[in-house]
Amino acid sequence: MDVSIKKIADHLEKEVSIKGWVDNFRSSGKIAFIILRDGTGFIQNVLVKNEMSEEEFNSIKDLTYEDVIDIKGIVKENKRAPGGYEILVKQFKIIYHYDKEEYPIQKKDHGVDFLLNHRHLWLRSKKEFATIMIRDEIIKAIRDYMYENDYILLDSPILTPTAPEGTGSLFETDYFDTKAYLSQSGQLYQEAGIFAFRKTYCFGPTFRAEKSKTKKHLTEFWMIEPEIAFCDLNELMEIEEDFVIYIITRIIERQKNNLEILGRNIEDLKKITSPFYRISYTDAVKMVNDGGLKMEWGEDFGADEEAIVSNHFDKPVFIHRFPKKIKPFYMEDDPEDPKVVLGVDLIAPQGYGEIVGGSQRVHDLDKLLKNLKAAGLPEENYKWYIDLRKWGSVPHSGFGLGLERTVAWITGISHVRTAIPFPRMINRIYP
Amino acid sequence: MDVSIKKIADHLEKEVSIKGWVDNFRSSGKIAFIILRDGTGFIQNVLVKNEMSEEEFNSIKDLTYEDVIDIKGIVKENKRAPGGYEILVKQFKIIYHYDKEEYPIQKKDHGVDFLLNHRHLWLRSKKEFATIMIRDEIIKAIRDYMYENDYILLDSPILTPTAPEGTGSLFETDYFDTKAYLSQSGQLYQEAGIFAFRKTYCFGPTFRAEKSKTKKHLTEFWMIEPEIAFCDLNELMEIEEDFVIYIITRIIERQKNNLEILGRNIEDLKKITSPFYRISYTDAVKMVNDGGLKMEWGEDFGADEEAIVSNHFDKPVFIHRFPKKIKPFYMEDDPEDPKVVLGVDLIAPQGYGEIVGGSQRVHDLDKLLKNLKAAGLPEENYKWYIDLRKWGSVPHSGFGLGLERTVAWITGISHVRTAIPFPRMINRIYP
Repeated sequence: MDVSIKKIADHLEKEVSIKGWVDNFRSSGKIAFIILRDGTGFIQNVLVKNEMSEEEFNSIKDLTYEDVIDIKGIVKENKRAPGGYEILVKQFKIIYHYDKEEYPIQKKDHGVDFLLNHRHLWLRSKKEFATIMIRDEIIKAIRDYMYENDYILLDSPILTPTAPEGTGSLFETDYFDTKAYLSQSGQLYQEAGIFAFRKTYCFGPTFRAEKSKTKKHLTEFWMIEPEIAFCDLNELMEIEEDFVIYIITRIIERQKNNLEILGRNIEDLKKITSPFYRISYTDAVKMVNDGGLKMEWGEDFGADEEAIVSNHFDKPVFIHRFPKKIKPFYMEDDPEDPKVVLGVDLIAPQGYGEIVGGSQRVHDLDKLLKNLKAAGLPEENYKWYIDLRKWGSVPHSGFGLGLERTVAWITGISHVRTAIPFPRMINRIYP
Repeated sequence: MDVSIKKIADHLEKEVSIKGWVDNFRSSGKIAFIILRDGTGFIQNVLVKNEMSEEEFNSIKDLTYEDVIDIKGIVKENKRAPGGYEILVKQFKIIYHYDKEEYPIQKKDHGVDFLLNHRHLWLRSKKEFATIMIRDEIIKAIRDYMYENDYILLDSPILTPTAPEGTGSLFETDYFDTKAYLSQSGQLYQEAGIFAFRKTYCFGPTFRAEKSKTKKHLTEFWMIEPEIAFCDLNELMEIEEDFVIYIITRIIERQKNNLEILGRNIEDLKKITSPFYRISYTDAVKMVNDGGLKMEWGEDFGADEEAIVSNHFDKPVFIHRFPKKIKPFYMEDDPEDPKVVLGVDLIAPQGYGEIVGGSQRVHDLDKLLKNLKAAGLPEENYKWYIDLRKWGSVPHSGFGLGLERTVAWITGISHVRTAIPFPRMINRIYP
């Protein structure tokens, strides 16, 4: 019976069959080691000349990377083998072999651009495999959290008729006899949803045609955006915290092996417990200035400023109540200080920066109209959004969590480009 | 304590508080009925003049659709009330009221175009609510099935550098100094994924700039595309069947109320059991001709032809082994008949048409190159895809299930436009 490497421990000392791809191999005259990959994991196979047919043992000399093999053997415990188990091979067959060209990704250092050009093959490598496995689990944790907590998935459209916050960073396409823009956020549509479903979310690809070339920017990335009726800023922070802890807990529980492959310090992740720290923008500005970086009240944080703040803490920190003038029109004013709005960013520790941005939304019709005017945004572009403040308007809040930044943080990788299967950046749209 | 309408049965004969929106109301002098919506469901509230303060009872006269109210009362069983429960109100408060304009959606027939123009409000209506709730559950069932069966989510990119099957129905955008096209299918990327993860899927928005104006076409729709290594056509049909039955079973179990709101005959859904019917394209053509519609072997099915075939069956039917000349280059030849390929469509009963398309893929390098050439597709556009047939190539198969068609079928609605929160069609990109 074919078994999967993921469940190999269930078959200790038993004979199993596995089909998969050759990730690596080495051989002396009498013993050979093959690292086999079956799509669920990696395992070491030991081939001893005297333990199998000579013909089969000798066929190893033809082996090359990515050959497909079918092996039969006994599962053994081996503390020194990666993963703790290995297979003592009894039968061995090459079922697919290609040697007209050398496999592009050799066991040596390649430049990252070369690897990204071969992303369709690079995904087979151990660390890329581990990263995508953790991404898959993070996404499932997100969907489970939403489902268990009664959020209804309300997919926001990607093709949108107007450019909510200006066209500067939007991808545009002809849409029959008009124009369409690829969505940069599904938030406004979620705000329509909460009056029907109370708690909604969207979770889809999001597009920003920004010329940013940083380790935190993709032109196409995934974002989850929950929105909650009858929810204020304080409750929002509680929800964000609960949500992030749920994700982290799941990953620690179910992705230990893959975290280890990536060399992620699990102890650092275990520190991500309730409560997160909460400081006001005003206090954060003071912290930045005290940390030696000059910054005026009213300026926005950059990566360096965020780093100074987050370095004070070993777990995520909320920065709340930003100056109204640097935040979008839909954020609610702080009733205690009209210079600031009830917005909040969540900054991950260890320099991973902002992973969540959220706010309480303006729910009063007149205030919304005033804010649109002040921002120079034409009312006719927000016709249906304004309707939401006429019928059944209630206080509500929501946030957006950037998936790839979260994956990068949890896996400990240095750049969001490998936190997604096929990254899109200013200079990359292949493969 | 605030409770949710979804869980009202847990509070029978107890006092509860509910906040929500007024969906409908009527009043005589002494008794009033309010249908309240809280985002989890709808419930009837009974207000009896003598059972509450006169001031509160009289405030009902100001009530209008979509007002937000806060009520306190006792949960009662009432077989004649929608949902089987109602609340005998003790306290009643209007917490948001707007009457400067009439709520656009009145309790009368509106044209569908009017309703779609007010989709942001129409979602609050009972049937739209029920449809989206079922959509949410279908999506969760899909994600759970994939997770439980070891499929790894490998999001295919939306922005792609080339047009795999011609640019005719593609949305195009400037991408910095080059062009990009919105993906019509994530399949080819999944074929890269299976060599790393064995079983993968993508599930995202998909775009077709088709000028089709039928009840089955959207320009932006969601599609799930699983791909499986070491899988042939027969196994693929088994997987598709298992998958569809899993979804249907979940919906029957957990969405009975919403199916009833939509008037869906649950008995029809209960018939969707294993095995589905399987007929060859050749037999299906005969069936169409016998059914009175003229059709030559080698032509493709349209909606009318599909309807004739599906009307023979009370559950889904697989049509397999299509003429090679009407199917894409990546489909594997039938070894027993080179005129046909190992492709398969799954046709839903009751006229809902094709909901799944799938095939075994060509895995031989030379055959792939030959097919590309025959289809007039330049090799340089498929550089990375061709690589997959060089290293580690194995037989594999996959399929794509159209989400909105599946939602329309399961909910029994007549048009895919309300199977998605914010539909995009040739003449619609608002709201």
